[in-house]
Amino acid sequence: MSNRMARLARRPRGMVTRADFTIEDGPVPEPGPGEFRVRIAYISLDPAMRGWMNDAKSYVAPVKIGEVMRAGAAGIVEKSNSPAFNAGDAVQGLFGVQKYAISKGERVIKLDTQQAPLERWIGGLGMPGWTAYFGLLDIAQPKAGETVVVSAASGAVGSVVGQIAKIKGCRAVGIAGGPEKCRYVTQELGFDACVDYKAGSLAHELKAACPGGIDINFENVGGEVLDTVLLQMNVFGRIALCGLISGYNATEVPPGPRNIRAVLTQRLKVQGLIVFDWADRVPEAIAQLGQWHKEGKLKAREDVREGGIDAFPEVLNLLYTGGNFGKLVLKV
Amino acid sequence: MSNRMARLARRPRGMVTRADFTIEDGPVPEPGPGEFRVRIAYISLDPAMRGWMNDAKSYVAPVKIGEVMRAGAAGIVEKSNSPAFNAGDAVQGLFGVQKYAISKGERVIKLDTQQAPLERWIGGLGMPGWTAYFGLLDIAQPKAGETVVVSAASGAVGSVVGQIAKIKGCRAVGIAGGPEKCRYVTQELGFDACVDYKAGSLAHELKAACPGGIDINFENVGGEVLDTVLLQMNVFGRIALCGLISGYNATEVPPGPRNIRAVLTQRLKVQGLIVFDWADRVPEAIAQLGQWHKEGKLKAREDVREGGIDAFPEVLNLLYTGGNFGKLVLKV
Repeated sequence: MSNRMARLARRPRGMVTRADFTIEDGPVPEPGPGEFRVRIAYISLDPAMRGWMNDAKSYVAPVKIGEVMRAGAAGIVEKSNSPAFNAGDAVQGLFGVQKYAISKGERVIKLDTQQAPLERWIGGLGMPGWTAYFGLLDIAQPKAGETVVVSAASGAVGSVVGQIAKIKGCRAVGIAGGPEKCRYVTQELGFDACVDYKAGSLAHELKAACPGGIDINFENVGGEVLDTVLLQMNVFGRIALCGLISGYNATEVPPGPRNIRAVLTQRLKVQGLIVFDWADRVPEAIAQLGQWHKEGKLKAREDVREGGIDAFPEVLNLLYTGGNFGKLVLKV
Repeated sequence: MSNRMARLARRPRGMVTRADFTIEDGPVPEPGPGEFRVRIAYISLDPAMRGWMNDAKSYVAPVKIGEVMRAGAAGIVEKSNSPAFNAGDAVQGLFGVQKYAISKGERVIKLDTQQAPLERWIGGLGMPGWTAYFGLLDIAQPKAGETVVVSAASGAVGSVVGQIAKIKGCRAVGIAGGPEKCRYVTQELGFDACVDYKAGSLAHELKAACPGGIDINFENVGGEVLDTVLLQMNVFGRIALCGLISGYNATEVPPGPRNIRAVLTQRLKVQGLIVFDWADRVPEAIAQLGQWHKEGKLKAREDVREGGIDAFPEVLNLLYTGGNFGKLVLKV
């Protein structure tokens, strides 16, 4: 029995490659006093992870060279010296890209696997769900009747944003890549419309989907998508800036939103959000999302990939090419 | 006696030229029932005016071809059929680039020329002052001890922003063009520091002037200035987006802020502002700015240009080349 780990070997340029990581075996770690060991079942693959590999000022320190790659994950406590966690507990936390993790319980949350399977607790009911919840409700503050546009609408965060928008009485319009994802967004998730950005007429289609203009944009993508949305924002609109995934693998700083002038002329509020800022309110998000999930108002879809730790670099890249469909999860 | 007027003849490309306007004489207009006639003394030249000439979606309708160019102005009521205004009243309003204007009193404000000269009522105590007042206090919400950076710091809006920041107990740092303007900003207006963007090391100098980072940016310029500021913003910083003057004469949409990612990683709030949105609170701004002015806490400087209506295109361009020093005003 050994612990397989993906350590960051060097700072990637552009899309990650297998050579950016040292994927190797080590001994299964033993928990010290007050610690416990988790056997990881699912690793969460999130767009932000690419940024964590860069040596740049950001909201968390970069992953150090030689360190196990940072990642959210869910698993089962195997052995515990902590009074707060028992063997058999299902948990999620920032356990890293590895098979076994040692934790003191910091930012670790116990999961109810009766309510939803493990992998959903790192998806729609986990950090991406909380991001959608706080970002839409706290930052964008939707009012019934408003039009909410969310990019990467079939993704882990976007899918929850649109469904909460519907719960709050808004018109929810998604932007996604390809007819299959768009069909899922409208037919399964209940968005009012979804525009396929790959179809080549985003501005035109978005206008048709938002005849009254856009009041709220929950932005996950940036680039051309954000520029198109900016020109259709209504006066006093709000943009919750959650991600800029279109630029995360750029080797030069990508161009900024050239339609920034709309922020001025339409008096928009653009606000960046990082879910960690709501750490003390996570229980509220879990309770509310869980309730909606139970009531059938909140659906989620995971895209679970096999291949274990060794497949990490390749699977991660799916996020940046639109190759995943639903919350991307690596099965360990 | 005749009325000299500057009418928009065509939509300018880039900087305005004399040929973009028809500057001609007409009869002195007679006020109808409920109207009054103003003899204009000073015309306000504001960066936003360039945008009003474009046929683009904005916060006000574009000036129509053939129409007298829109402009704020101050003057004296000459003849009145309105019960609210009397001959001899000093007033300011959107009277246009002309010698005489007819008004029904909409958005017209009576001025106390005992307190400050006419031209100051379209500068630091007028719309630029109100913009600074509401933009800084309502949008950016400074707290004592925070660092406030304002671009175009010697200009009509920027100079007031920094002085209010000081009144509120903040560190005020200006960005201006050239040593003379910078000296004025620190020595006359009392900013803590001023960085000369023309000196060629803006990022470095700004960092030295803001050792604790930037909490608030009152942005008038955009372009490279905004991009430089973005990288020095503190977590939860606020950007009051008041102007993007660096791009107002661009013939193609200028590049957007390529450091937009800082909005996300630092959780910034970027909010556009147009002073017209506070129309109902203008009396509050006038009272407070007037009070500070009386107490000597708020200084203002006008750059009054001769040449009358005919000089309008040429004088306006000074705003976009940094050729003015203080609030730019055209004497009629």
